[in-house]
This record gives sequence, structure tokens and C-alpha cells, in this order.
Amino acid sequence: MVFEGSEKKIEIVVSDSTGDLRLLGRKYWEKIVSKCNAEIISEIKNDEMIAYLLSESSLFVWKNSILMITCGKTSLVNSLLEFVKDFGVLNIENVLFQRKNEYYSHLQVSNFYDDLDLLKELLPGSAWRLGELDGHHNFIFYYEQTTAKFENDKTLELLMYNLEEEVGETLRSENLNIKNIRDILGLDSIFYDYQIDDFLFSPCGYSVNGIKDDSYFTIHLTPEKDGSYVSFETNDERLGHDELVSHFIKKLRPKSFDTICFNLSQLKALDGQTVINKCDHEISNKLSVSFAQHINNPVAKTSASYQLF
Amino acid sequence: MVFEGSEKKIEIVVSDSTGDLRLLGRKYWEKIVSKCNAEIISEIKNDEMIAYLLSESSLFVWKNSILMITCGKTSLVNSLLEFVKDFGVLNIENVLFQRKNEYYSHLQVSNFYDDLDLLKELLPGSAWRLGELDGHHNFIFYYEQTTAKFENDKTLELLMYNLEEEVGETLRSENLNIKNIRDILGLDSIFYDYQIDDFLFSPCGYSVNGIKDDSYFTIHLTPEKDGSYVSFETNDERLGHDELVSHFIKKLRPKSFDTICFNLSQLKALDGQTVINKCDHEISNKLSVSFAQHINNPVAKTSASYQLF
Repeated sequence: MVFEGSEKKIEIVVSDSTGDLRLLGRKYWEKIVSKCNAEIISEIKNDEMIAYLLSESSLFVWKNSILMITCGKTSLVNSLLEFVKDFGVLNIENVLFQRKNEYYSHLQVSNFYDDLDLLKELLPGSAWRLGELDGHHNFIFYYEQTTAKFENDKTLELLMYNLEEEVGETLRSENLNIKNIRDILGLDSIFYDYQIDDFLFSPCGYSVNGIKDDSYFTIHLTPEKDGSYVSFETNDERLGHDELVSHFIKKLRPKSFDTICFNLSQLKALDGQTVINKCDHEISNKLSVSFAQHINNPVAKTSASYQLF
Repeated sequence: MVFEGSEKKIEIVVSDSTGDLRLLGRKYWEKIVSKCNAEIISEIKNDEMIAYLLSESSLFVWKNSILMITCGKTSLVNSLLEFVKDFGVLNIENVLFQRKNEYYSHLQVSNFYDDLDLLKELLPGSAWRLGELDGHHNFIFYYEQTTAKFENDKTLELLMYNLEEEVGETLRSENLNIKNIRDILGLDSIFYDYQIDDFLFSPCGYSVNGIKDDSYFTIHLTPEKDGSYVSFETNDERLGHDELVSHFIKKLRPKSFDTICFNLSQLKALDGQTVINKCDHEISNKLSVSFAQHINNPVAKTSASYQLF
């Protein structure tokens, strides 16, 4: 039994005349979420936003925009298509659809190229691959009706692969509770003033959403022995991005990690880490993205052979 | 239009009582090759072996064994199943089935796990993955009826990814002829006493088989702009393996390359190259394999973003 931790992600901005998306109510979002075969587990809200924790990751809803992240075998593109169908192409200002490196691509319902075929019929956007085909890479589809509404959106994504064995074992242990995982991740030291909603999956796996004003952070942890993976994402500019990366790398000790930065200045080089592949790209005149794959120093690493049967 | 250069490979040893496989004739091998949707282009032979150049790579036939390598969208497992059906499981001493990192896995007819489902029904073998899921890796299925017949089989595979742009451009140029490619690869300096059979594909791509006594070498070159790839393989122990790797790396200047060594001692570290992932594995008590992914030094490399549409 394997679980695909790597995520797909959509960000959609609607026109001002569309009305407040937060007022649509949980029933509506349950429908959207069901289109990709996920479910809402719980929710938290504040004056700016609602954050839904999903059976496969997260959905954040602001007045004029949404952010949805799903992992596993979800077909997130279907949720995107349903949303666009409901509100109409003319009311969609911006769409960013992203698909990350997958571990078990043969188990997925679709691949990025299949998703593109569906998207292209509806939205005249463009698509790119960041990073080499033979290494970690990231697929992005982008559509804008007028101009990028993401310009204030300074988002950091941190994708951590193959946690150090000791960390992985701890995260897979049966007696783990939510407090233990929060401690392992060191959440209290950084997100002490965030409203938090988290869930421990069985037999393993953990998701957390945190919100504060219009900022969010979210972490999804899949500690499977063969192919452990943790993702972190935030739009909180007040937190130092270099410090955040450094914090999680120290806590989880992944063998390699990717950083994907939207509208952020270059991250500092980290002690003991080497960038082996890097790609900067201007998606539109208001939206740039920087992708980098980092590995541990010394770079020579030995992996086990994995018996398949 | 993209072409998957990465190969699948089978090695089969039959029992001594089976008779001389070389006497089966080209018609028989045309049938086997057609099962994976490839064709025989040409052949060369000597007292020990026959080497067929295929529309997608190569087939080598010895008295008691065959080696078949195919790329593109071929379903090599079907050729393997046909051969086993013809000769009977009891006459099959050893089978090694290998599948390399793929660039365009979504375009393949099957994935390794699909292939395994078919193989497992017929042959009670085992399968492994060498290398991490998130990096270059190699799948191997192995079956032995008695004991490994591959013990004298010291094979070097060298897989080169993302040739330096200047080299790639040269190899894609329209006016290239076979002599030019032989020069670029420096074949004459190493394989001067080999019998050679090579073919230049249109619009680009090149395959060569070389034989001498019971030794072979084969090179398959797919210089596509996005995802160029060259594979080299030989069982010739008389040639220094370290020198061979060094020779091709200097000629083709790939951004990264994998070495897969069967029953060979460790390769020397190459100047200017760093191993970022390494895996040694004992397949059976007579057959060991060592996989390593190397990248250029300095390791920080910048890649372009690739526009998909």
C-alpha cells in the first residue's frame, strides 16, 4: 500500500463583481471537493478567510480567491473545471494550476498532459515545465484574463523528500499523537499566534492548516517508509523564508528538498545543502517563480535497493 | 513530437539442451521483435554471435542466450513472454528484465508494475528498484531456475542525460552523416577492431552495434532538444571500464549520467563529476549490480523552463 504525497494545486482569482466566495457555504465547497474525490474533514475561519482541512490536503477560501491543494490519487483538475463552469470563464481573472513531481505516477488517474487537454479547451492559458525532465520538476499552467492578481502573493513552497530514517520511523510509530507531531515539527515556536486545525490519519500521515489574518500555512506529512514526503506552504511574508526552510530541514532532515517561490527574492544558500538544479521563470509580468532542487552535503548518498516482490 | 530514449532490456539464458539459438534464423527473430512493435533493420555476425540492429535499438543472439534492448514505446515484455512461450519455462535458465528511468512515462504502453504482473504469472522471480523514487532509478526483475548463468557477464551500462547544448545541436543538425557521428563518438579510437553496423534515423537519432568474438558494444543516441539521451553498453572486459566512461563523458558532456555495472568492481570517481545517489545490490549469489547517478561539478546547474504550449 503506497500513498502519493506529492500535490496538485490550484489558485483561482474571480472578478470583484462575483460576490464573496466565503458566503457560498460548506455545502458548495463539499461539492467542489467531491469532484476530485476528496472530502472536507473540518474547518476554521477568521475575518479574512475560511480554511478547510480535506481528506487529501487543504482548501482555503478568501473573498475573491481560492487555493486548493490535494494529494493522493485526487483529480484536482476536475474541481477546477467545476468551479469555472459554475462561475463562468468571464468571471475568472486568474488561474494557476500546478502539479509536482510524482512518486507513483502510474497510479494516478491522469497525468499533467491529460489535465492540460481539459484545461486548454476552457481557458486559453500557457503551460511550462520547471526543472529538467530527468530530475525533480514542476508543471505549471497559467491563465490570466487581464493581469496577474497574484502580485501580492509571495508564496513559499517547501517539498521535502526522503526524511532521515530515524525521523521517518518516529513519524510512523503507532503511539504518536497530534501533540507529538506538533513538537517534532516545532509548530509552537513559529506559529504560536496562528489558529490551528490538524488531523492525524491512520495508520500514518498528518495534515495541518493554520490561519492568521489573511495568511495561511499548511503542512502535509506522508511518512511512508519507501518515499516519505512532507510539504510546507505559506504566504506569510512576516515570517523569514530562509529561517522557515532552515527550521524544517533541521527538524525533518530530508535527503533532498525542493523550494518553489512565487514573487520572492532568492533564498539564501543553506549550510550543508547544495542546489543541483535551478530554474527561474517569469510566468507573467506580475508573477515570477523560482524552482530549486537541493540535496544534502556531502552529496554522495547511498540508497537501499527496494524489493518490489 | 518526442521520443523516449530510455531503454528496456532483457537477457535470457536457455538450457544447453535447447539447441543453438543462432540457427533459428532471421524469420524467427523478426517474429520476436514484432511482438514489441519493433523491426529488424540489418544484421552482422561472426563465429560467436549475431547482432541485429532494430528500429528501436538492438538484439544480440549467442548460442545459449539473447540480449534485447528496446526504447521508444516498445512493449519489450511481450517479446520476452513470446520467447518463453516458444521454448517453455523449463528450458529457461535465467531471465533478467530491466527498465530504466523514463522521460515520458505517460506515453508508454505499460509501466514496470504492469510488466511485472505479466512476468509473475509465468516466472517466479523477484523484482527490485535501485535508486530513490524521487531520483534516477532502475527497475530489475530477475528469475533463475538453478543458478545465475550471468556470472561471466561483466556488463557496463552508461546512460547519459541532457548533453551539453553545443553537442546536442551538432547531433541534431540536418547535414550530419554516419561518419560525422562516429567521429563525434570517437568510435574508431576504441572499437577499431570491431565489426560495426550503424544507422542514422530521420530527422535525428543514431544506433550502432559492434561485435568482436563474443563481445558487443551498442550505442543509441536520441538527441532531442528537450531530454537528449545517449546509452552505451558493453560486455567487453578487455576495454577499461573507467576509460570508457571517461571517454564518452568527455565527448558528449551530459549534465548527468548513470552507471549500471553487473559483476564489475567499483568504477573510479571521475574528475569533475559527483555521485549523488548510489545503490549496490546482490541479485543472486553470482550476480551483483551497482547503480550510481552522477552529476557535473560544480553541482549547481541552471535549467531552462520548457514551454509546453
